Amino acid sequence: MSTDGGARSRRFGKGMSPDARSMNASVDFDWRLLEHDVAGSIAHARMLAAQGIIPAADAEAIVIGLLAVKEDLEEGRVAFDPELEDVHMNVEARLIERIGDPGRRLHTGRSRNDQVATDLRLYARAAAVDLVGLIDRLRLALCARAEEHLDAFMPGYTHLQRAQPVPVAHHLMAYEAMLARDRARVHDAGARAAESPLGSGALAATTLPIDRVAVAASLGFAGVTHNSLDAVGDRDFAVELVSAAALCQVHLSRLAEELVLWSSQEFGFVRLSESYCSGSSLMPHKVNPDLAELVRGKTGRVVGDWVSLITTLKALPLSYNKDLQETQEPLYDAVDTVAACLGVTTGMVLTMEIDREAMARAVARGHLLATEVVDYLVGKGLPFRQAHDVVGGLVRRAEEHRVELDALPPDEIRAESALLDPDDEGFRALFEVARAVDRRDVPGGPARARVAGEIARVRAELTGAPRAENPADSDEAKP
Amino acid sequence: MSTDGGARSRRFGKGMSPDARSMNASVDFDWRLLEHDVAGSIAHARMLAAQGIIPAADAEAIVIGLLAVKEDLEEGRVAFDPELEDVHMNVEARLIERIGDPGRRLHTGRSRNDQVATDLRLYARAAAVDLVGLIDRLRLALCARAEEHLDAFMPGYTHLQRAQPVPVAHHLMAYEAMLARDRARVHDAGARAAESPLGSGALAATTLPIDRVAVAASLGFAGVTHNSLDAVGDRDFAVELVSAAALCQVHLSRLAEELVLWSSQEFGFVRLSESYCSGSSLMPHKVNPDLAELVRGKTGRVVGDWVSLITTLKALPLSYNKDLQETQEPLYDAVDTVAACLGVTTGMVLTMEIDREAMARAVARGHLLATEVVDYLVGKGLPFRQAHDVVGGLVRRAEEHRVELDALPPDEIRAESALLDPDDEGFRALFEVARAVDRRDVPGGPARARVAGEIARVRAELTGAPRAENPADSDEAKP
Amino acid sequence: MSTDGGARSRRFGKGMSPDARSMNASVDFDWRLLEHDVAGSIAHARMLAAQGIIPAADAEAIVIGLLAVKEDLEEGRVAFDPELEDVHMNVEARLIERIGDPGRRLHTGRSRNDQVATDLRLYARAAAVDLVGLIDRLRLALCARAEEHLDAFMPGYTHLQRAQPVPVAHHLMAYEAMLARDRARVHDAGARAAESPLGSGALAATTLPIDRVAVAASLGFAGVTHNSLDAVGDRDFAVELVSAAALCQVHLSRLAEELVLWSSQEFGFVRLSESYCSGSSLMPHKVNPDLAELVRGKTGRVVGDWVSLITTLKALPLSYNKDLQETQEPLYDAVDTVAACLGVTTGMVLTMEIDREAMARAVARGHLLATEVVDYLVGKGLPFRQAHDVVGGLVRRAEEHRVELDALPPDEIRAESALLDPDDEGFRALFEVARAVDRRDVPGGPARARVAGEIARVRAELTGAPRAENPADSDEAKP
Amino acid sequence: MSTDGGARSRRFGKGMSPDARSMNASVDFDWRLLEHDVAGSIAHARMLAAQGIIPAADAEAIVIGLLAVKEDLEEGRVAFDPELEDVHMNVEARLIERIGDPGRRLHTGRSRNDQVATDLRLYARAAAVDLVGLIDRLRLALCARAEEHLDAFMPGYTHLQRAQPVPVAHHLMAYEAMLARDRARVHDAGARAAESPLGSGALAATTLPIDRVAVAASLGFAGVTHNSLDAVGDRDFAVELVSAAALCQVHLSRLAEELVLWSSQEFGFVRLSESYCSGSSLMPHKVNPDLAELVRGKTGRVVGDWVSLITTLKALPLSYNKDLQETQEPLYDAVDTVAACLGVTTGMVLTMEIDREAMARAVARGHLLATEVVDYLVGKGLPFRQAHDVVGGLVRRAEEHRVELDALPPDEIRAESALLDPDDEGFRALFEVARAVDRRDVPGGPARARVAGEIARVRAELTGAPRAENPADSDEAKP
Repeated sequence: MSTDGGARSRRFGKGMSPDARSMNASVDFDWRLLEHDVAGSIAHARMLAAQGIIPAADAEAIVIGLLAVKEDLEEGRVAFDPELEDVHMNVEARLIERIGDPGRRLHTGRSRNDQVATDLRLYARAAAVDLVGLIDRLRLALCARAEEHLDAFMPGYTHLQRAQPVPVAHHLMAYEAMLARDRARVHDAGARAAESPLGSGALAATTLPIDRVAVAASLGFAGVTHNSLDAVGDRDFAVELVSAAALCQVHLSRLAEELVLWSSQEFGFVRLSESYCSGSSLMPHKVNPDLAELVRGKTGRVVGDWVSLITTLKALPLSYNKDLQETQEPLYDAVDTVAACLGVTTGMVLTMEIDREAMARAVARGHLLATEVVDYLVGKGLPFRQAHDVVGGLVRRAEEHRVELDALPPDEIRAESALLDPDDEGFRALFEVARAVDRRDVPGGPARARVAGEIARVRAELTGAPRAENPADSDEAKP
Repeated sequence: MSTDGGARSRRFGKGMSPDARSMNASVDFDWRLLEHDVAGSIAHARMLAAQGIIPAADAEAIVIGLLAVKEDLEEGRVAFDPELEDVHMNVEARLIERIGDPGRRLHTGRSRNDQVATDLRLYARAAAVDLVGLIDRLRLALCARAEEHLDAFMPGYTHLQRAQPVPVAHHLMAYEAMLARDRARVHDAGARAAESPLGSGALAATTLPIDRVAVAASLGFAGVTHNSLDAVGDRDFAVELVSAAALCQVHLSRLAEELVLWSSQEFGFVRLSESYCSGSSLMPHKVNPDLAELVRGKTGRVVGDWVSLITTLKALPLSYNKDLQETQEPLYDAVDTVAACLGVTTGMVLTMEIDREAMARAVARGHLLATEVVDYLVGKGLPFRQAHDVVGGLVRRAEEHRVELDALPPDEIRAESALLDPDDEGFRALFEVARAVDRRDVPGGPARARVAGEIARVRAELTGAPRAENPADSDEAKP
Repeated sequence: MSTDGGARSRRFGKGMSPDARSMNASVDFDWRLLEHDVAGSIAHARMLAAQGIIPAADAEAIVIGLLAVKEDLEEGRVAFDPELEDVHMNVEARLIERIGDPGRRLHTGRSRNDQVATDLRLYARAAAVDLVGLIDRLRLALCARAEEHLDAFMPGYTHLQRAQPVPVAHHLMAYEAMLARDRARVHDAGARAAESPLGSGALAATTLPIDRVAVAASLGFAGVTHNSLDAVGDRDFAVELVSAAALCQVHLSRLAEELVLWSSQEFGFVRLSESYCSGSSLMPHKVNPDLAELVRGKTGRVVGDWVSLITTLKALPLSYNKDLQETQEPLYDAVDTVAACLGVTTGMVLTMEIDREAMARAVARGHLLATEVVDYLVGKGLPFRQAHDVVGGLVRRAEEHRVELDALPPDEIRAESALLDPDDEGFRALFEVARAVDRRDVPGGPARARVAGEIARVRAELTGAPRAENPADSDEAKP
Repeated sequence: MSTDGGARSRRFGKGMSPDARSMNASVDFDWRLLEHDVAGSIAHARMLAAQGIIPAADAEAIVIGLLAVKEDLEEGRVAFDPELEDVHMNVEARLIERIGDPGRRLHTGRSRNDQVATDLRLYARAAAVDLVGLIDRLRLALCARAEEHLDAFMPGYTHLQRAQPVPVAHHLMAYEAMLARDRARVHDAGARAAESPLGSGALAATTLPIDRVAVAASLGFAGVTHNSLDAVGDRDFAVELVSAAALCQVHLSRLAEELVLWSSQEFGFVRLSESYCSGSSLMPHKVNPDLAELVRGKTGRVVGDWVSLITTLKALPLSYNKDLQETQEPLYDAVDTVAACLGVTTGMVLTMEIDREAMARAVARGHLLATEVVDYLVGKGLPFRQAHDVVGGLVRRAEEHRVELDALPPDEIRAESALLDPDDEGFRALFEVARAVDRRDVPGGPARARVAGEIARVRAELTGAPRAENPADSDEAKP
């Protein structure tokens, strides 16, 4: 056997130079595939025996040997050896050390090219499942906090200017809605990865009578890939998973930004748990939202991972090229980062204190109910555009008087439009926050009954519990 | 009415400065939403009338007026006015000019925030449909050329080194396989975009008794969005579509790279049609594959579009922020670019001449059948790893003799292993290319029957034609 | 002459297909090079005549003709024709139309490859000059507003938590410091672009006795490029300029973010001029900081431009490849975007109202002077780490009492450390904001005298005015 | 002292949750700053003593202690403790363990914010120096190989189509030219990083009478930063360095692409040393250019690092935000990657065998001297555009005859233009490659004398050796 453990045949006259060896080795990061590599090899060996390509006894020795090698490596009894380049060669070399010739038959009918593609797809599928679980946990956390604060009102913002009041619950459930889409995308990426490339060989399958479908089934894949050149030469499944992860991270960055804003002295809407805050080495009074900032900051990281991955794939001729080795680290980094950020965000959401009074004070200033007056005028028959303009004038007067709209002198109100009667009960009622919110009673709207319906719908989806009928749920369009 | 056509109420004391006006206006690019904007407004107006919010006669005037305005703008009888900021205000202002007060009622119960979200989702859905059609056209083109060259063999490459022979058809169908996944991703992105945000208002829906579900149905949406803050504040559907488009573009870049390589004098595998080549202003002998290079080069563009889009979304607090205006151009650019590249690539694929002789010459040099000898030794019972090593020695000898494997002196062959008999018919047969390829008869493999089966399967999928039974097709894993 | 005006010789049997022609043409965007293209051609023609390569009369006809063609195109008397592919061929074809055979001699000794490289470097140099001017204008605007508010104090923040008071001027001058570095980077990028590639031919220079150095000098280049393959095949100068522009845009995005925050009701630190704000189509009370948001949002655009550019260059073999055509649009887009954002930001800075009272109120809450007490204790000999810990305890007590540090009951203060004497004048003085700030009297520090020195230093640099001696300026390190 | 070693004062009631602690800690990567952190602390301590802020004896104890702590950590006698969060706190805590109270005085007058900014700038400066050295080594390697192959000719390519012959040396020196610019950019980035932020405190400097200029000088900085908020809150120096590194990596990717192409069987221009190649686990005949592929593939990585970095900085308000912690890893990764790729590329360049015969064969096919005929006709007075067209016709005839231009039947040649005389000595001489190349005798051109001049110029720059006068060197433009 050649000194390189197989990949370097006797065709070669000399070994690699040290700098090349160091750059070429991937075991520093592909050790993460160990579990999947061994699972793939076991399925492969069993199939080889079932097809009569290797003796059944050899397959049995291989399976037992692989499990032992895996345990040795996992528990550190044996270390990964960079001289053996990658996880595949490490496992095979250890296997041969343990069981001799049967181990030399394991690689029959396959190549590292289809082997690593298989490992990576198994990894991607498992990572998608993990992320889905973490996303759902955060969605439930948001539902829990939303339910708790269903009747606390805060300013809804556009352009970071106070716009219209909404229940805190509605604001929190906006993130649930984003995460529900992230979940679907991550799930789809995992599902699309779940085709078995094993049996594609180095690029042109094999002459041996292997059974690709059986291997796929035993590994839990949904089917087999359709073209051997493509199967070993593409990593689009990794890009798709990182795309979905990056969008999820962007959604987390938006929530993190709001936690940073809300925990500032200026907003004062929440107090993050000290468990998620740090102090200053110099300024003893500081309590800083470091974790929210890190979640926000890590967005660049995941976006960069996507760029690394896709740039690496650009313009590669078929089929396998070594460049593909560079697709592993960004994939792992993106998955790890988003998983960690989902966990930390769930922790922050569950432990933050919401200051309902501070929010209520904020709702009271900034003419947040101006649009109610527009709708009131529209109800009286004024075309919308004119109503909008009348209330614009009203706001201008209020600003000049430095008061909120409902504190404008009655004459000023009447001066803008004869349709406005400051003494009218209906007019005065426009300025009651809870009623104003509850009037916004359309699917997806902030009325508390609608938000409660949403919480129930999501809970039922996530926990399988039955839910009461709620008109807000029937969102499907009927042609 | 205020001078700004509505968006700037009398709350304002003065207009925008010219530099701000110029940066703020979006009509230079959002004119592309015209068709969708008018469709959305028509559905909205009809619903307002059906719900009794505006008079039926007004709705009728609005519908007729909108169609006229659309025609005026499309045919250039009226120009878009940047002073009116965006397509929405242009349409509304023209409508009011035409029909007066009924036009002023159109914006009742909605905001530009939910309006533009609706327009963009309609655009994304339509763009996805277009891209799917263009992808399928290219897949059919690949099938056609593959079928034509089912029994022409070329070197399959890994690391751009000749590896094993494959039918040209198999190589072409590798791209079909990539595009099939791209199609699925683009389709899913379009489907996920197809929820109606209309009725979400500026951020908090409306107090008016609108019927969101009816509007969604009349616009062909699959349902309505679940949270008003999210509906106006996110553009993840655009990012998802651009993600899918970027992956498709990367696949095109790989094919383009191969067309550039193959049409070089060194490869000489194809001659691109002069319809897709350019000359040199200085060197009269040049015929350059400019279009393949452009397809390759435009990858950076689409990757950059994705980065622009997702970076813009990072860390934005809820709900709508003006930054979202910056998500339109990268979306349009990515869709246009990939659509154009799909078209040009289809043209190049359909018109290129494939030089089968040049490919055959390439297959004959480089020990492409060395692995056949390994499998032969494995068949004789030698463990794979040892067989691999024996053939490595054989190749080394061939290199020293500067011959191909099958031209090695018999003694040299025997010297490597007693299992190798240069006079054996089976041994000699290893070196017949067609037989070597056809022995690789597993699902997804290069055997001609398998490739023919793939072509038939894809054709049937794309044209709906029934297809003959083919064992290569049953790729689903059975547990 | 061939129908393509030169680039397509009679070597070709047929023309381009329409889709290829449309993708291949660049005149839609490279018309921007017109001015530089004509300048380059004039310098080239004059040199050809001076070297005796073409008749002097022809050169004169060419120069006159080119100026006329330029005017025709600039004033729209003649339109750019996409059939002629690019700006170069448009100009040459129009020239030949005008002056006949002498025009056919213009392209002697050059190629479009060195021609477009020359045009782009001229463009890059000019763009750098423009950006430097716009950056300096913004720096002066910041100086002006800083000087105006030298003795207004606001909270300095870390982690968006109030940290220590600083003069508003100091905060504004932080942006000046960033922009000064941006200026240097943009300037360096322009300078590095200023080498003349003309004379590099298509890739291998020319056999004709041209004078590259003379052409370079007449175009204002600092020298000539050193390698013809490199000169036509690289666009790193464009990437460098866009890198510098992207960093500048990131700095603008930080200022824009602060303008958005500061103009929120929660901060209330500034009121942006209505000239840089927009209203809402639905909510008449809204005054939104749209322009600040756009400046922030356009960061994604410029980052995406850089990614497009550099991804396009990845792994291109030498020398010229058509992919390089794709480097133009991101370059133009980045330059235009940053230029516009610099202008708008300057406008916002110059016109915003700063609410000193709101800032003063913010400074008064949040224990911003806690670190003064630490320094006080250090002054009394307590090791810093212990002092930090004592004041941490003090802040905890203040939080429990819901008061600021200086309002803590004297006993509580004494209880933390015997070194603290609430009756001590020195202790009480710690809590005077202006004195606390002015004690921070180190180079780069917030003491008002230091900030004033900085303003003077920058003004002198930008306006050339002499400046008074100021100790704060001597920032150079002396070994 | 508080349990967190200082950063978490007694202001806090509880510690961090485990997930937060794990995400918050940076010592996993910022251990790389150890050397710079200790250097910075030593300079700081000495200055504190010199200014009388701490006792001289304490400073001495600190310096001795720091050197011991550094050695302990470097040699693994003490491990970095993630509970202590970062390298700064690890060092300080170990110092206090060793020397007690004097150690508690080290942090006097500084903050981790200015400390980490200092460390990172010291790192960036050192990294720039390292990269410059590695770039220069590769430039010298290119010069060496170029000199060796000054009179071997290869096809120069545009669009990967054979264009005109050039010396291999000229092609190699094109990379030298790119690297020379990379060197300048990396150097400038290092120089711009070399300003000392120490003394900027957490954000607002300090009240203590520190001497920033002395510290800067003792650390070898060129000066001090101008604004404390900016100094702790920006990382543009890191982005600039990564920008320069990314461009360098793109240049390496182009060379790597060519090495992959050239070592293919189709080109056969070079044979890479087996020291930089790998084999196949399945196909024993393969010798793959893995290292060249990795260098190419790692481009995505460095581009992604830049994106991560700059995206992280987008829209952060002043001054320090925890997001900045995320700027470290991409910086390290980019520097490490480019450094490793420079080393490996140097190795590949120095060890590859260049096959001059294969190159010569390639030059002989593809009408590479067609442009010589154009110039010949121009010399006879034909306007360039017409000459270009005549030779286009000539090439068409040659293609039809399937011969090279100089093998066209004389009648065919004469038929194209009366100016062409196939019997003319001057005409025949056009087709001698060496003469054709040497006629291209302009600065930056491929004539062998010019290339030799370039090699000499670069060598002299890099080694300081005097060089002979060479007219090709005087590339400076004289107005």
